[in-house]
Amino acid sequence: MAKNAFYAQSGGVTSVINASACGVIETARKHKDKIANVLAGRNGIIGALTEDLIDTSKESDADIAALRYTPSGAFGSCRFKLKDLEKSKREYERLIEIFKAHDIGYFFYNGGGDSADTCYKVSQLSEKMGYPVQAIHVPKTVDNDLPITDTCPGFGSVAKYIAISTREASYDVRSMSKTSTKVFVIEVMGRHAGWIAAAGGLAADEENDIPVVILFPEIPFDQEKFLATVKAKVAKYDYCSVVVSEGAHYPDGKFLAEQGTRDAFGHAQLGGAAPVVADMVRQALGFKFHWAVADYLQRAARHIASGTDVAQAYAVGQAAVELAIKGHNSIMPTIVRKSQNPYKWEVGEAPLSKVANVEKFMPRDFISEDGFGITQACRDYLVPLIQGEEYPPFHNGMPRYVTLKNAPVAKKLPEFKL
Amino acid sequence: MAKNAFYAQSGGVTSVINASACGVIETARKHKDKIANVLAGRNGIIGALTEDLIDTSKESDADIAALRYTPSGAFGSCRFKLKDLEKSKREYERLIEIFKAHDIGYFFYNGGGDSADTCYKVSQLSEKMGYPVQAIHVPKTVDNDLPITDTCPGFGSVAKYIAISTREASYDVRSMSKTSTKVFVIEVMGRHAGWIAAAGGLAADEENDIPVVILFPEIPFDQEKFLATVKAKVAKYDYCSVVVSEGAHYPDGKFLAEQGTRDAFGHAQLGGAAPVVADMVRQALGFKFHWAVADYLQRAARHIASGTDVAQAYAVGQAAVELAIKGHNSIMPTIVRKSQNPYKWEVGEAPLSKVANVEKFMPRDFISEDGFGITQACRDYLVPLIQGEEYPPFHNGMPRYVTLKNAPVAKKLPEFKL
Repeated sequence: MAKNAFYAQSGGVTSVINASACGVIETARKHKDKIANVLAGRNGIIGALTEDLIDTSKESDADIAALRYTPSGAFGSCRFKLKDLEKSKREYERLIEIFKAHDIGYFFYNGGGDSADTCYKVSQLSEKMGYPVQAIHVPKTVDNDLPITDTCPGFGSVAKYIAISTREASYDVRSMSKTSTKVFVIEVMGRHAGWIAAAGGLAADEENDIPVVILFPEIPFDQEKFLATVKAKVAKYDYCSVVVSEGAHYPDGKFLAEQGTRDAFGHAQLGGAAPVVADMVRQALGFKFHWAVADYLQRAARHIASGTDVAQAYAVGQAAVELAIKGHNSIMPTIVRKSQNPYKWEVGEAPLSKVANVEKFMPRDFISEDGFGITQACRDYLVPLIQGEEYPPFHNGMPRYVTLKNAPVAKKLPEFKL
Repeated sequence: MAKNAFYAQSGGVTSVINASACGVIETARKHKDKIANVLAGRNGIIGALTEDLIDTSKESDADIAALRYTPSGAFGSCRFKLKDLEKSKREYERLIEIFKAHDIGYFFYNGGGDSADTCYKVSQLSEKMGYPVQAIHVPKTVDNDLPITDTCPGFGSVAKYIAISTREASYDVRSMSKTSTKVFVIEVMGRHAGWIAAAGGLAADEENDIPVVILFPEIPFDQEKFLATVKAKVAKYDYCSVVVSEGAHYPDGKFLAEQGTRDAFGHAQLGGAAPVVADMVRQALGFKFHWAVADYLQRAARHIASGTDVAQAYAVGQAAVELAIKGHNSIMPTIVRKSQNPYKWEVGEAPLSKVANVEKFMPRDFISEDGFGITQACRDYLVPLIQGEEYPPFHNGMPRYVTLKNAPVAKKLPEFKL
């Protein structure tokens, strides 16, 4: 008695979230006795609520395979947070109705902390309402802030991009410092957790003595100490690179740059810490500067994705389906680090009750004592995650990514207003 | 009677200027009967003026070969413009003295328009002063604005980076547009010429129907028309990408964003057009936005350099030496497009008298009628330049670039104050 599966992508997309989709769909296609078809939500959970479902059986095996190397969310994502079971009762009940109407027995939700929470609530409610749905959360977030799992698919590729970009730009500044730019500032993502900023520290290694000053969200910004550190680096190297997290903030919680707008989750929409920091350096120290804001480029850069990350993103998608088939519910596949050197990992699992609404920050011992760098422990953690180059195919000088047909499933229920 | 050669890197560096250095040095090493040694200027022409010369014979063949895939200026560059022969007489005469003292018979100057001018003047002066130096300009500029040559080494790789980044970010925005970001703005280099901005147009092709709105420096900014175009794109696609050149400006010449600082050449130091454009869109149309400023990342991104560009950068370095050996003077090797399909090119030459102080802008027929896109003619021109991926070697998840020893040559002359 095969049931259909529902799959949706949630929140900010990554360069490898489609590799997880690929893992889900390819694995489901191998188990037609258990999973008849994978229906995807167009634009995430909104697709489920509005019965805007995509029939993935209309996609060729080749196109599904191409998801492995296509960045972004192939079915569309959304920022739409379901609240608690009382406040969003109407929406949760609608989900169960949709699942009933489309014979959906599996709910695969691919996202970060907020979607883990939604996934957990769906599993609770489906029990209560007597319509059994196995809800499995597929982890994804460039922020790397989910608990229990060693890392989050999406992070390793951003880390690789930021590490490489910081190294490349540092070589550039080093060339220019005699008469021109002495300080280069790059702003990276990471609203609360400094994992991505930490990756900038990988620009330096035994072969590359590059001065990198990192501003973490975990360390309240101390302007005087920061400027003294930049000054000392420039005195020694004649140049310096600064990696500033979008979440870097003053001791009172005020972000270095806040645009004043907020996203659908009520989070402040950030951007612009880099010019603020650059101008601070110019005013206090008089150094010429350049600054970059990587923004979406960092999380979309499939052209330089981490091989480890791609493999892990696929693996959690595959594991989600395999766990579901074995009867598991209300869990999330995790990445378990089995050994450090050589790096070995396997897929484990965590109950959603322990994942939902927990954020994982950089441990203090991953940040150097002065607060501006990474420690060897952090390096040991990060380096395996950026290993391997799994280049996409190129055509005519450009990466050839897939755009799916995304054929709609016929609607069966009355309209639902969001 | 072999003479030494002098080689220096000038102005903003690129991801392939070292490939030209590699071409110069490897070719010189094959002609020891004519070129005894290549002495490099530490930090460009300043290294010559201050007698801060680098003995490249101390570098292994392997390290010189590694320059081919190492971004930035391996010997250091500078922004230091020599004025006309009268105003900078002292500097020009010092150069000739340095050349005499170090038995330098060849002057290879690797840069853009300003350095072509310097190179031209050195060749004029050396004749006047009766100390024969063959001055050959090796073209380099991401701005692609040198005349005569079909393209400038450094440009193809930036074009590839911007084309790929715009495509990747566009896939990202497309995923998010239902509830979140509808407009993504990326700011790119190009102070006067829109060649780099044009490359953003390559994000779209027959397989990728991506809405891209480009703001060229060649087209005075018309806010009303721009906003109407963005609005129409979003109405049709639900999202839109905007590529804005740092040199985009209002009809009165005022840049969309000017930081108020000026570089050593007196050019306004730009940056920050992206947030200005993004905010304009938000205020007028209410769309959620994200913006990125690629800055140095674009010109340092050796990890995704164009194979064509790397080959051409090497070739102009090699040709410079071969032309010098054949007795040429006061010229610049050029790239000549021999055929379009299949793309074939060869190295030609141009007299420096026709190169110095001439800037090449985008022809009007490369820009679409509405001023916000590229034409098929532009596409035909650009596409061959981004062909091929010549990846650097990776070690431990990171590109392995070379840092040279840069051993100094013993000084022979009294100190010279800049």
